[in-house]
Amino acid sequence: MIIAGRVDVDDLPRICPLLSRRTNPRYGESQTRVVEVGRVRFGGERPVVIAGPCAVENREQTLEIARAVKGSGADMLRGGAYKPRTSPHDFQGLGLEGLKILREASQETGLPVVTEVMDVRLVDQVAEYVDMLQVGSRNMQNYPLLVEVGRCGKPVLLKRGMAASLCEWLGAAEYIAKEGNLEIVLCERGIKAYPSGEYSRYSLDLSVIPAVRAETFLPVIVDPSHATGVAAMVESASRAALEFGSHGLIIEVASDRLDAVKPKCDAAQAITPRTLRKIIHFVETRQEYLAERLHVASA
Amino acid sequence: MIIAGRVDVDDLPRICPLLSRRTNPRYGESQTRVVEVGRVRFGGERPVVIAGPCAVENREQTLEIARAVKGSGADMLRGGAYKPRTSPHDFQGLGLEGLKILREASQETGLPVVTEVMDVRLVDQVAEYVDMLQVGSRNMQNYPLLVEVGRCGKPVLLKRGMAASLCEWLGAAEYIAKEGNLEIVLCERGIKAYPSGEYSRYSLDLSVIPAVRAETFLPVIVDPSHATGVAAMVESASRAALEFGSHGLIIEVASDRLDAVKPKCDAAQAITPRTLRKIIHFVETRQEYLAERLHVASA
Amino acid sequence: MIIAGRVDVDDLPRICPLLSRRTNPRYGESQTRVVEVGRVRFGGERPVVIAGPCAVENREQTLEIARAVKGSGADMLRGGAYKPRTSPHDFQGLGLEGLKILREASQETGLPVVTEVMDVRLVDQVAEYVDMLQVGSRNMQNYPLLVEVGRCGKPVLLKRGMAASLCEWLGAAEYIAKEGNLEIVLCERGIKAYPSGEYSRYSLDLSVIPAVRAETFLPVIVDPSHATGVAAMVESASRAALEFGSHGLIIEVASDRLDAVKPKCDAAQAITPRTLRKIIHFVETRQEYLAERLHVASA
Amino acid sequence: MIIAGRVDVDDLPRICPLLSRRTNPRYGESQTRVVEVGRVRFGGERPVVIAGPCAVENREQTLEIARAVKGSGADMLRGGAYKPRTSPHDFQGLGLEGLKILREASQETGLPVVTEVMDVRLVDQVAEYVDMLQVGSRNMQNYPLLVEVGRCGKPVLLKRGMAASLCEWLGAAEYIAKEGNLEIVLCERGIKAYPSGEYSRYSLDLSVIPAVRAETFLPVIVDPSHATGVAAMVESASRAALEFGSHGLIIEVASDRLDAVKPKCDAAQAITPRTLRKIIHFVETRQEYLAERLHVASA
Repeated sequence: MIIAGRVDVDDLPRICPLLSRRTNPRYGESQTRVVEVGRVRFGGERPVVIAGPCAVENREQTLEIARAVKGSGADMLRGGAYKPRTSPHDFQGLGLEGLKILREASQETGLPVVTEVMDVRLVDQVAEYVDMLQVGSRNMQNYPLLVEVGRCGKPVLLKRGMAASLCEWLGAAEYIAKEGNLEIVLCERGIKAYPSGEYSRYSLDLSVIPAVRAETFLPVIVDPSHATGVAAMVESASRAALEFGSHGLIIEVASDRLDAVKPKCDAAQAITPRTLRKIIHFVETRQEYLAERLHVASA
Repeated sequence: MIIAGRVDVDDLPRICPLLSRRTNPRYGESQTRVVEVGRVRFGGERPVVIAGPCAVENREQTLEIARAVKGSGADMLRGGAYKPRTSPHDFQGLGLEGLKILREASQETGLPVVTEVMDVRLVDQVAEYVDMLQVGSRNMQNYPLLVEVGRCGKPVLLKRGMAASLCEWLGAAEYIAKEGNLEIVLCERGIKAYPSGEYSRYSLDLSVIPAVRAETFLPVIVDPSHATGVAAMVESASRAALEFGSHGLIIEVASDRLDAVKPKCDAAQAITPRTLRKIIHFVETRQEYLAERLHVASA
Repeated sequence: MIIAGRVDVDDLPRICPLLSRRTNPRYGESQTRVVEVGRVRFGGERPVVIAGPCAVENREQTLEIARAVKGSGADMLRGGAYKPRTSPHDFQGLGLEGLKILREASQETGLPVVTEVMDVRLVDQVAEYVDMLQVGSRNMQNYPLLVEVGRCGKPVLLKRGMAASLCEWLGAAEYIAKEGNLEIVLCERGIKAYPSGEYSRYSLDLSVIPAVRAETFLPVIVDPSHATGVAAMVESASRAALEFGSHGLIIEVASDRLDAVKPKCDAAQAITPRTLRKIIHFVETRQEYLAERLHVASA
Repeated sequence: MIIAGRVDVDDLPRICPLLSRRTNPRYGESQTRVVEVGRVRFGGERPVVIAGPCAVENREQTLEIARAVKGSGADMLRGGAYKPRTSPHDFQGLGLEGLKILREASQETGLPVVTEVMDVRLVDQVAEYVDMLQVGSRNMQNYPLLVEVGRCGKPVLLKRGMAASLCEWLGAAEYIAKEGNLEIVLCERGIKAYPSGEYSRYSLDLSVIPAVRAETFLPVIVDPSHATGVAAMVESASRAALEFGSHGLIIEVASDRLDAVKPKCDAAQAITPRTLRKIIHFVETRQEYLAERLHVASA
């Protein structure tokens, strides 16, 4: 039986000749192309930590969390102005107003900001306000959107679709690259598998990280918040992701003030600023220490 | 542990109040809302058969297949003018030229035509040339596109995402319905599961059909071509889909002329007009015969 | 990257040389080997219907259902004496007493009986009382058990493991065949996939049927009861299975007496004798009618 | 729709009352019960590392690897004497001879040894030669085997079935516990999901670890070798597993001698003794250093 549409990693040179190490030897067998967003360097020496609220709900909430994110030592701010929601009757984000709040939070804290763009007609609008455009899981194969963010030239955070194969994911990235934009960071965020919903939201698929790194030179980070959907798992998932070779993390944070309003979306997966500090402390400690000790030891 | 974003079918009244039978009692517990596309009636007495090429490749190929589809007794024509492909380097469809060819094929055969629209900016253009708009699997959660096809008012064929839960699928349909457009036909087309690629392209999930019919009044059809990816399975998959309660089929057909050029995409799943005739003969026979005999017997 | 243990259908000649059509040409490209259990012929002209209770709970319940099964026109009786249960604290079956009840029900109705054997030490005991041994999903790769049922020589119903690939399934059957026992009937019973539990118990994977039939000459049947877990889906799932090429069905039935005790296991998936009659009527009608009409038409 | 057999973690008190923290409060909300195998303590202060060949192929190979494992600082030896293989025509292990070799290797190195038992009739034989019995993935729901290893009283390593839910896994462990044997160590080893085979053998599901630890007091370890199937991923998977809360690792090792014979099974996933040393160095360093520094910092 011949099955239509069947591809495997040996087809990557045909699917994504610009991004496959096999056809684009510029970065050799293991070097990562550094993607810069302001002073932040994805794929550089140190893992990047992006943090912020799931959605921008109002100015106060966003600024409070942005300050906490900055105070924790994170590198970048995240926050949704346009939110893809399962139901059209759920909160859809503040839109343009949300973008303005994000810019204010970015300016006050000095942190570059990334936000999701869902609508191909709004790429330019969103790009005006933020430093990096996110293409979310649900739109990983929204090819007109990929083309437009490719043309826009801004750095792109391309989340993996929740049922995407490695080939489909790198094929999606190739749509951006084909427009001349190689400023792409990939992001694993959990896949659908039979246990989804029993004890975690999705199945965090960390094994894809070394596979991505073997096949392309693009940096790859992990979203432990959406992958697990459980705040209590985010810290250990973050540490595991880094040990598995992730170039960074994108994490949802909520206020820990006792009188804070509960987030409108995905409250159960948001960690507190205190837990964020622990994660960043791990990143720093691991850098300082392991860089010296482990590498010496294994030499 | 509380898991963020976890929903089940009991949440459908909140996710899709317009489409859930639990909140919209107009169609009772089992009645289907008929969606009309010209004289074609989805959810009516007789299952609808849509057939045509995967992609519109040129005028001759399309007209030849359209005539064969008409001659086989099918109800509607399908064909892709804009093709979502895993790689940007693959054939992306003829675009506007393809739409014009589809219209010509529709006019000549008298068959209404459905085609995929991927770009929210092209909804009006595509709607001008065809009778029904398809939103494909990869765009099932492209919410701006759903809103726009909802506003456009044309009947919509909404394919299930390849990892979509029932809740996510009906939530996507609700985006269309919320714009005032209830002319929605759902389409199961195979999901990603561990056997995908071993003996079929996706896993055809026929059990979702009675679940859809229990939860909403929208008609639901099946795409056996993409689900199996194997031409030799399409006939039996089609018959099984109808027995499982499907309101119709959408099938890919290729020329059986010995000198025909191989289709540019998904050639291995296209059946010949001869096999299409057998499927339609099954539909007709089953209607005439089973309607009388089986229903009498079970009365 | 080379992945350990990776196989695909092209490895079947090595995995199961006795059962693969590619290495054992005795049954050509499409002929099925008939497996006889008494007068019942799996893989013969007419699909086989096996029905009965999930578990043998007591003499009265089993005889009542056995009579109803016989009265419905089914070919064989099923019933569990040894039950594999998720919890050791759940009802585990009546064991030897259950086997005796099954034999009595078989003798009274004249229906051959199949029951599951889980314990390699009990193969001979179970074989003494029944006509066909079932190896359940949970034991599909319990190789000592497969060897022992192979040696025993009785016909075997080998259910597919809930995550088994086609290669693993046929490899398991080869363990039985290697002991000289080719009296094997395969049974698809639903696989684990991401939707499992949302609207059906498992994902009924009908596409595997033509794949099995293409690769081996063993007959293959379907268990719509466990696959869907929803009584209301069993009739349509049964019809669909037959259209997809299944050589038969194995179905769970419960009493429809108003004062009947609810079954101790899997009550929600058991159909009534009335629904069983409808399914068997479909089998018969389809045989008589379609055999003439459809085959003539497609000639 | 009511679905038969549907359970979730809230059913654990009913499924496994002996092992659920909710019904057995002896270990509180987070304490782990220590399982001792000789001087090795699963669930104690320090993660346990088990290593050894996939299969015992001969005395020389096993002793050579055992010495390397000992020299690397690992805590326990593994090795298969009875091997569950997809095909009955593949090497099935040396059986009793393999057990004797394992015992010799254990005595020479002083390392306790774990090996798989597949046949309920051989539990006593296997238990005579080794310190811990492994029940493999394929037999996770072989309930007679679970009962017998429970009665035997030896410590048990219970691997997760490749499609097992958390509830099914803990239900399987309860079969052992019900016989009075609480010396159980759980082992995650990868699950079947749609990417299986594309870039890794199974999908390593590390998120299950905190879920296991939240629901039961049994220790849980990870098998990065089978989960990934790729030797080059084992080191990073091991580190990730420990950061995600795993109480240990079980790893396949092959000789790195240039003239060594390639292992008969799963060669592509076996690491060299040199890589094993790096993993154990990580374990030790992490213990010494992180224990002080990170915990102080987060206090």
